[in-house]
Amino acid sequence: MTLSQIDEEVAKLLQLKAQLGGDEGKHAFVLKTAKGTRDYNPKQMAIREKVFNIIISCFKRHGAETIDTPVFELKETLTGKYGEDSKLIYDLKDQGGELLSLRYDLTVPFARYLAMNKITNIKRYHIAKVYRRDNPAMTRGRYREFYQCDFDIAGQYDAMIADAECLKIVYEILNELDLGDFRIKVNDRRILDGMFAVCGVPDEKFRTICSTVDKLDKMAWEDVKKEMVNEKGLSEDVGDRIGEYVSMQGGQDLAERLLQDRKLSQNKQACAGLTDMKLLFSYLELFQVTDKVVFDLSLARGLDYYTGVIYEAILSQTIPALVSTPAEQNGADEAGVNVGSVAGGGRYDGLVGMFDPKGRKVPCVGVSIGIERIFSIMEQKASSEKVRTTETQVLVASAQKNLLEERLKLTNALWNEGIKAEVLYKKNPKLLSQLQHCEETGIPLVAILGEQELKDGVVKLRNVVSREEVGRGDGGFGEGIQSRWSKAVRSCRFSVLLRTVRQPPSGRR
Amino acid sequence: MTLSQIDEEVAKLLQLKAQLGGDEGKHAFVLKTAKGTRDYNPKQMAIREKVFNIIISCFKRHGAETIDTPVFELKETLTGKYGEDSKLIYDLKDQGGELLSLRYDLTVPFARYLAMNKITNIKRYHIAKVYRRDNPAMTRGRYREFYQCDFDIAGQYDAMIADAECLKIVYEILNELDLGDFRIKVNDRRILDGMFAVCGVPDEKFRTICSTVDKLDKMAWEDVKKEMVNEKGLSEDVGDRIGEYVSMQGGQDLAERLLQDRKLSQNKQACAGLTDMKLLFSYLELFQVTDKVVFDLSLARGLDYYTGVIYEAILSQTIPALVSTPAEQNGADEAGVNVGSVAGGGRYDGLVGMFDPKGRKVPCVGVSIGIERIFSIMEQKASSEKVRTTETQVLVASAQKNLLEERLKLTNALWNEGIKAEVLYKKNPKLLSQLQHCEETGIPLVAILGEQELKDGVVKLRNVVSREEVGRGDGGFGEGIQSRWSKAVRSCRFSVLLRTVRQPPSGRR
Repeated sequence: MTLSQIDEEVAKLLQLKAQLGGDEGKHAFVLKTAKGTRDYNPKQMAIREKVFNIIISCFKRHGAETIDTPVFELKETLTGKYGEDSKLIYDLKDQGGELLSLRYDLTVPFARYLAMNKITNIKRYHIAKVYRRDNPAMTRGRYREFYQCDFDIAGQYDAMIADAECLKIVYEILNELDLGDFRIKVNDRRILDGMFAVCGVPDEKFRTICSTVDKLDKMAWEDVKKEMVNEKGLSEDVGDRIGEYVSMQGGQDLAERLLQDRKLSQNKQACAGLTDMKLLFSYLELFQVTDKVVFDLSLARGLDYYTGVIYEAILSQTIPALVSTPAEQNGADEAGVNVGSVAGGGRYDGLVGMFDPKGRKVPCVGVSIGIERIFSIMEQKASSEKVRTTETQVLVASAQKNLLEERLKLTNALWNEGIKAEVLYKKNPKLLSQLQHCEETGIPLVAILGEQELKDGVVKLRNVVSREEVGRGDGGFGEGIQSRWSKAVRSCRFSVLLRTVRQPPSGRR
Repeated sequence: MTLSQIDEEVAKLLQLKAQLGGDEGKHAFVLKTAKGTRDYNPKQMAIREKVFNIIISCFKRHGAETIDTPVFELKETLTGKYGEDSKLIYDLKDQGGELLSLRYDLTVPFARYLAMNKITNIKRYHIAKVYRRDNPAMTRGRYREFYQCDFDIAGQYDAMIADAECLKIVYEILNELDLGDFRIKVNDRRILDGMFAVCGVPDEKFRTICSTVDKLDKMAWEDVKKEMVNEKGLSEDVGDRIGEYVSMQGGQDLAERLLQDRKLSQNKQACAGLTDMKLLFSYLELFQVTDKVVFDLSLARGLDYYTGVIYEAILSQTIPALVSTPAEQNGADEAGVNVGSVAGGGRYDGLVGMFDPKGRKVPCVGVSIGIERIFSIMEQKASSEKVRTTETQVLVASAQKNLLEERLKLTNALWNEGIKAEVLYKKNPKLLSQLQHCEETGIPLVAILGEQELKDGVVKLRNVVSREEVGRGDGGFGEGIQSRWSKAVRSCRFSVLLRTVRQPPSGRR
């Protein structure tokens, strides 16, 4: 059979299927979002905005630009970048034309962007949604559609300076988000590889043993060792030697000690990694973040493309509702985002070269903030709080009937002065329902129109909570806005309006 | 054949296809984005941010909340909402599980959201990307992936107040974006239907004649009439009668005149539409926007779901590079976004009811800003300008060698004080290349470290453009930031650092 014959045959069969009654004969209309996805309601959006503002401010404080890429890429752009996780990629239907897939992360599109535009150095952030056909665990903030907030530094620079800045950024963001205590684990792929070599792991098993080590944050050492010996075919001895190393944690001192280690110091890779680790800690000292950073030999991280330093941030606090159910734990774990992990990243010096026709390398280091988990935590925290979802400053209300035109005119004048204002879309709303709208949505001020005041050319402004009158002289809006309020009211010339609308004109005022 | 037999057969064939060498035997690696999509580079992102800020400020000034929905919906959610344009929907591949499609607009997901959450009134905006497998015309800002900025008011309210606010919003946004003169055309589906009825168009042809009328902004009347007569089967007479009406333009006066029209006044639909049009213009008068709004009987708009007022904003100015090529004109036009149109919308009182199990209606009116065209125009305008893509305030530089640690320490202190600062990731960068970095990226200030100054515990701060020294007393950063600068420098205690790092400790200072 030729390819085009197959295509024809497939098309015929699918047509037959459609005639027979579509997919699985389902016809009942289901009112839901796709599995593993969710809507954001206004309260959730208010929280999301707050989190984004903190993160973006930090990225900008560090001098980053931002870019954006399409939600789908050519399928071949994603091929061969994610190892086993490739099965989680969403493909688009072949509707004629190019074969497309939804992006799986922001790192591969970033590398494609750099190669395509021949960019050799940039410091950029990118906040966007990515897609993984994974087992969702929504209470823990694990979705099939989720945000990533990535910060990356690309360019040929002196060792460890950019890497240290990435860790500083994680530190600043987690501090400012106020999620409680946290730790940042650091390791280096070269140290891991060197360690495996001196322990006697055969070269071809480095990657698979690496994934087993990566499970140490969720499994006991005995079980990890069992997997190494029984499933991956290491000897007991080799397992025990690995066990000694991966239990080590420390700081600059540990790097120094391991550089003296009889076996490790013989391995070129390990020495390079340990020397850089020492240097990294000296910069972290200057950046005043060593209180939270731990050099941890058990940190492995799943993704294939890392070549040097790797890191992961973990919250110390356990948030009850975010603990996974046993059913959820059975699911495959999302690549690189472990239970408790809220940020992760590392150095990937080879990825851009995979896209360059001439294989030119652009060294990169970056970090991805696991924002969905953070949203979940913040939403949990805010669940009992009242969060304002609008920024409206004044509701323009009336105490009497037949004042719709005056309400619209004043609202219009406020908009023109840049004051955030609302008006109910009713001809004759009750004063009570207008005040209730203020209370429900947290609008602090209400402008109340009445016939007498309009004749006098004034408008009462009332603080909704305290019921005090403001705005005739004392600053109800705070500095700078008072004058805009007065200007808006004056611009309405209500007494003139009243005459124009209700009475026959009787000369100018 | 049963459905499961077909599925099996399809799977077997696809496997064979994969073995034979994948899709169409293509193997050459192509470095590009998917057809009809684009990356945003940092300069384009800076422009996008500016445009979004203007639009979002306006939405917030009008008291809107915001929501977000997933990028894909169940396929059946989109089915039957877009008429002929349904062929432009992107479907996801059936990888097991639900059948999904990328959203085609934000209105249908909004209606699904309202029905699903039983929300009967809300004023919300939603800014997100939507997807259409259309013929792209990228120089004119027409993409397969593009942003929509939607503002909608849902709820049972008194006539035309919310509708008028939508038009006010379009007016404010187009004014603030400063894109030159514009007009907003307004019509009503009920007036169109009434007009077709009194002209003698058979009921079943209303929709198709509507689409033909919609072409009047791109085609001459003779050609439109030809299509009505030759393709759609109207008589010459009926065509001529339509021709008389659709040439009419005006304001409130036109609505009043048509209410007296011998034929139209006999039609219930038309009368309701015209009465509302009169009322709408009275509110638009209060909102001071009638200078740009035209009641235009030729405005039809493509989408099926409109039930009342419809509108569309058009820029008067023609931007040369945005004029389409003949090849592009052959393509199907994007639903509802005509050449020159930068915003459009209307009332759709039936859409939410399509999702409600009990068919409960939620009246809605809204507007969508055609942001991609606006980006194109702004990018065009900015093509010769230098646009800053970062917000960095200071570069921390050094005039001598071996000052990396001091540079990092000061940069860290600036970050801690919330000052946006950068440092080059080199051990010993040349002063010239540090100054060049400032000039290229528009960083206004450079802090220059030197050994003598460090001993004295001071840091020179220089204005990059004027080369004047600032920051020892006079406010180089402007109000409020000066004190943070001083605090940052003091916190570094440089002379102490120098001693610690370079010299054997010799007592405290």
